[in-house]
Amino acid sequence: MTDAAPLYVDCDTGIDDALALAYLLASPEADVVGIGTVSGNTSATVAADNTLALLALAGREDIPVSVGATDPLRGTFGGGAPEVHGENGIGGVDLEPATASPDPRDAVELLLDLARAHPGELRILAIGPLTNLALALEREPGLPAMVRDVVVMGGAALEPGNVTAVAEANIANDPEAAAAVLSADWDVTLVPLDVTMEHTLDELGRRRLLEAPEAIARAVGETLEAYLDRYLQVYGYRACALHDPLAAALLVGTVQATRAPRVPVVVDAGDGPGRGQTIVDMRDQRRGPVDVPGARCRVVLETDLQVGPVLLDRLAGPPVA
Amino acid sequence: MTDAAPLYVDCDTGIDDALALAYLLASPEADVVGIGTVSGNTSATVAADNTLALLALAGREDIPVSVGATDPLRGTFGGGAPEVHGENGIGGVDLEPATASPDPRDAVELLLDLARAHPGELRILAIGPLTNLALALEREPGLPAMVRDVVVMGGAALEPGNVTAVAEANIANDPEAAAAVLSADWDVTLVPLDVTMEHTLDELGRRRLLEAPEAIARAVGETLEAYLDRYLQVYGYRACALHDPLAAALLVGTVQATRAPRVPVVVDAGDGPGRGQTIVDMRDQRRGPVDVPGARCRVVLETDLQVGPVLLDRLAGPPVA
Repeated sequence: MTDAAPLYVDCDTGIDDALALAYLLASPEADVVGIGTVSGNTSATVAADNTLALLALAGREDIPVSVGATDPLRGTFGGGAPEVHGENGIGGVDLEPATASPDPRDAVELLLDLARAHPGELRILAIGPLTNLALALEREPGLPAMVRDVVVMGGAALEPGNVTAVAEANIANDPEAAAAVLSADWDVTLVPLDVTMEHTLDELGRRRLLEAPEAIARAVGETLEAYLDRYLQVYGYRACALHDPLAAALLVGTVQATRAPRVPVVVDAGDGPGRGQTIVDMRDQRRGPVDVPGARCRVVLETDLQVGPVLLDRLAGPPVA
Repeated sequence: MTDAAPLYVDCDTGIDDALALAYLLASPEADVVGIGTVSGNTSATVAADNTLALLALAGREDIPVSVGATDPLRGTFGGGAPEVHGENGIGGVDLEPATASPDPRDAVELLLDLARAHPGELRILAIGPLTNLALALEREPGLPAMVRDVVVMGGAALEPGNVTAVAEANIANDPEAAAAVLSADWDVTLVPLDVTMEHTLDELGRRRLLEAPEAIARAVGETLEAYLDRYLQVYGYRACALHDPLAAALLVGTVQATRAPRVPVVVDAGDGPGRGQTIVDMRDQRRGPVDVPGARCRVVLETDLQVGPVLLDRLAGPPVA
């Protein structure tokens, strides 16, 4: 479709996932060649329904959507975050159900097929729990050498967590999977709460989406209604964090990381109070960003632009004066 | 000696412990009635020798010094931090050995005796691992109701650790003890790396100590020589963090906390990568300090003054213009 690199998106759609998908579909810098879903904000099945409905609104039912893992590597799916993303994962908004069905392959098969079809070129954007990616690594240990890079929204370095004092939802929902993915031998960029919490969209932004030319943008604007309320207690005004859209914009390069050292990252997959924490070693970073020798994971801490305006300009056109 | 509240100090002397002790002994706001030692920066025995030598320099051999726990609650003493505090705990400086001997009581007995002698009045300053305090709680479960309050230098909220990515030395040296002390039913103030790392003393400050009227201040100035070198890699210039002196100044009130919410604190005493971390729940603090209902521990995050100048004015007199 474009000369952009082929992109597989792994998501748990999810309000901010929906915003990230809408942004990617509207971006010539991105060529989404497949989407897998995973349980997180909602179940993998509902996430696939939501994703298909969004693709239908965008006229992009050509993109295969595969249902991925319902349960994390250990234990069972806990029911998602209806208090944040609504009972249906997209703020209670009733989207027209898609006529397309999920791809018959599961998300792991889809990912591996795409990696083989685009050797060394496929990029992976993971904005849900990392179960599918971990299962793909299990099924195909050579996967890291087959793909170009992986961008993960998740974790927290020095910022508090959002489901426990120290754990962020995508990691906390499957710490075992996160441990496998973040220690695998590929080029991983982690986009943690430290930076995503600094990127917000407010009610004025939501109104621009409601008046956008594309149906998918307007639909996403509707899903944001309750999400903005939810964040009121966090920010003190109606604005939501743009976790997944920021990871998407960093991947396509419309937002650039200005502080993103390669530092040791270990996932606490034990059963103590730190379960689900990304333990990011920031001890050598006081005097400025330093790549720690041997550290694989790049952790984004600052960016050149706010993703909110970038996203709104792309989806809704320039602001009306 | 003064009308100040009676104060028990539990320490692992230690260069910054020495500075804290010198400051307390010079402060009319403090009435040090007993000191217990614990293994941490150095062994409990060497810490007692160092403490007695400092008291002799200050002419305060009337203060009982008790040797406390050599080993943490679980495991054995690991040998201290000679790379930070020197082989003898005080930067390799040879202080004149004291003629006084340690008190025959161990530190736990001393603490309990003092708590009984000053019912409801005793204050506790803990600037080493919390082994002695945990053992005292075990031996006398009623201790919390017998003392006025406890100020602990230790842990990290959103700041990196100093012995692992997430663990601070005093807590990491005995996580089981820290877990007991920070969850006991008393008024605890935690002074973590988040605030202590912001309080420094540099070579100019050290020189003022070397020219101070009191022998103890001059001796402490000597111990700081290698300590300043050690911190060069952290700050980028020769300056050391004033961990223990800040906790001491906060206890006596010469420095006041301006941001110190009561927030949930859990110590990770498991065997995973987070062992020794103080998990401080900072999720509700984004919009300003909020005391979390039910939270016992006050965590100091900002102060009104830098402790360095306060300490130097007390120990060395006003700076020469």
